[in-house]
Amino acid sequence: MKTYQQLFEVFTSHINAANYGANPKELYEPINYMMQLGGKRLRPILALMAFDLFDSNIEKAIPAAHAIEVFHNFTLVHDDIMDNAPLRRGKETVYKKWNMPIAILSGDLMMIKATQLLCETETQNLKQLLEVFNKTAIEVCEGQQIDMNFETKKNVSHEEYLEMIKLKTAVLLGCSLQLGALIGGANNEDALHLYEFGKNIGIAFQIQDDILDTFGDGTITGKQVGGDIIANKKTLLLIELFESVHKDDKKLLDDLMQLTDTEQKVQSVINLYDKYLIKQFAEGKKQQFLDLAYQHLADVSVEEGKKSILINTAEELMNRVS
Amino acid sequence: MKTYQQLFEVFTSHINAANYGANPKELYEPINYMMQLGGKRLRPILALMAFDLFDSNIEKAIPAAHAIEVFHNFTLVHDDIMDNAPLRRGKETVYKKWNMPIAILSGDLMMIKATQLLCETETQNLKQLLEVFNKTAIEVCEGQQIDMNFETKKNVSHEEYLEMIKLKTAVLLGCSLQLGALIGGANNEDALHLYEFGKNIGIAFQIQDDILDTFGDGTITGKQVGGDIIANKKTLLLIELFESVHKDDKKLLDDLMQLTDTEQKVQSVINLYDKYLIKQFAEGKKQQFLDLAYQHLADVSVEEGKKSILINTAEELMNRVS
Repeated sequence: MKTYQQLFEVFTSHINAANYGANPKELYEPINYMMQLGGKRLRPILALMAFDLFDSNIEKAIPAAHAIEVFHNFTLVHDDIMDNAPLRRGKETVYKKWNMPIAILSGDLMMIKATQLLCETETQNLKQLLEVFNKTAIEVCEGQQIDMNFETKKNVSHEEYLEMIKLKTAVLLGCSLQLGALIGGANNEDALHLYEFGKNIGIAFQIQDDILDTFGDGTITGKQVGGDIIANKKTLLLIELFESVHKDDKKLLDDLMQLTDTEQKVQSVINLYDKYLIKQFAEGKKQQFLDLAYQHLADVSVEEGKKSILINTAEELMNRVS
Repeated sequence: MKTYQQLFEVFTSHINAANYGANPKELYEPINYMMQLGGKRLRPILALMAFDLFDSNIEKAIPAAHAIEVFHNFTLVHDDIMDNAPLRRGKETVYKKWNMPIAILSGDLMMIKATQLLCETETQNLKQLLEVFNKTAIEVCEGQQIDMNFETKKNVSHEEYLEMIKLKTAVLLGCSLQLGALIGGANNEDALHLYEFGKNIGIAFQIQDDILDTFGDGTITGKQVGGDIIANKKTLLLIELFESVHKDDKKLLDDLMQLTDTEQKVQSVINLYDKYLIKQFAEGKKQQFLDLAYQHLADVSVEEGKKSILINTAEELMNRVS
């Protein structure tokens, strides 16, 4: 089995050699820029890992892994417009560096390129690969819309929140593993177990993100502690707090949402999190999804030793900043 | 052979019964809205006509025809954002009726749906269909970017202009015919001749559009005569005029570009068009592309009688308002 680092190197050298096109340059420069911004390349590496469980000839899975990374970057380019985000990985976003029409159009082109790359896969079953990929791509769009709806929606239940992060983020991790497995020759059942493994790891990861924003060590996470609280962001923690507070704390919580003194606001909301055991609730949820993920991995019919690389990757994701 | 009207009815009943999805409604309502705006459904009908040359079981080509129409509407949704267009077929555009993020995201979803629909085709050669479709989809994006570049580009040659309309509009007509033919069982050569027929008809059609904007009958076209002149739009006519004017008329033309008296501006530019035989130039170019189109149609190896429906459709397009 190849390690994360080995697969990362194979994939990176492939990405660095990729030629997406040149003319008109207004369209292709942003694509090259985005694809060179770096990152841990988690999704394509997961695809390669799943492939590696069934077949060692990694080159066969490269076009699909590449397709997934281009698709992921397409969603980032368009999301950054919708979210008015100025920065991505410390660099200007495409719509800031160029402009909005160019960001729309170069994103569109990336979406098409992703399908084009997937079609380069040597396979007897292109139709199935495309079905899996298109289904997931649609869900990712749905998740983004639901997330935008949350900004103005008054009452969001924690079930709705979990559904949103599943669609917006987690299904693409699942899809990456499923595609890698299918290209490697896995049967549908094993491929589906790997999909569920990735999806549930993805949900757990997002929950952990919410927990760390409030309870993490800012010097490690590199983020302002309590940033979500200050922005009134509807995280699993805040949603559960609103679902849990007794009548007499409801007024206090509503007032805190209006507060401009950030230090007092963060501390007071954390006090309420403590009082209502919100962190424990979130940790419990996270563990549920982790357990589910490992159950599905256990059901994949390859020898246990081969699975350790996926377990290690999941654990590194979960422990990265706690 | 089925007539345009017969194919239109089959296709329309299919579109009317289509279910693109429901939740979240912010994402699916704009898709249903766009797909119900109507229009002549030229591209999918061309796909069905090409199919009908080789196979009479029209149902087989419906998913691909549907895919093409959804793709075309995706480009309209995104183009309307980029062009700041308030109206489309007399109704509000998606980004005006909803908002920009919804228009981006519902457009993205339509692009994915288009691929999904194409994948529903019963075929032994899905990979080839996708290659043809993706290549064209990329060219359409390139054409839109080149068109946007023209707004600020100082010197556009008529060759560059023809390349732009080929990419932005004409290749999708060609692709529609090619896909229909391939699904109908045509060999690659016949399918390529039909592609070239559609592409060249598309270019001729766009040139005619430019001619009619200035020389058409406003009561028939429903447009303000000279609208392109008033807006200094870089049409084939204006580009060729700039390429043709002698030194002593160059200053006059530059001044006319600044003129705010629209009536005088339109008449004076038309006078220059007459002086430099610009209409004749454009008519000649149009005829070149029409001739090329009919040559390719003649080379398609089906009996001549079957081709009359494509010739009639092309002639109706060309004569619609002259």
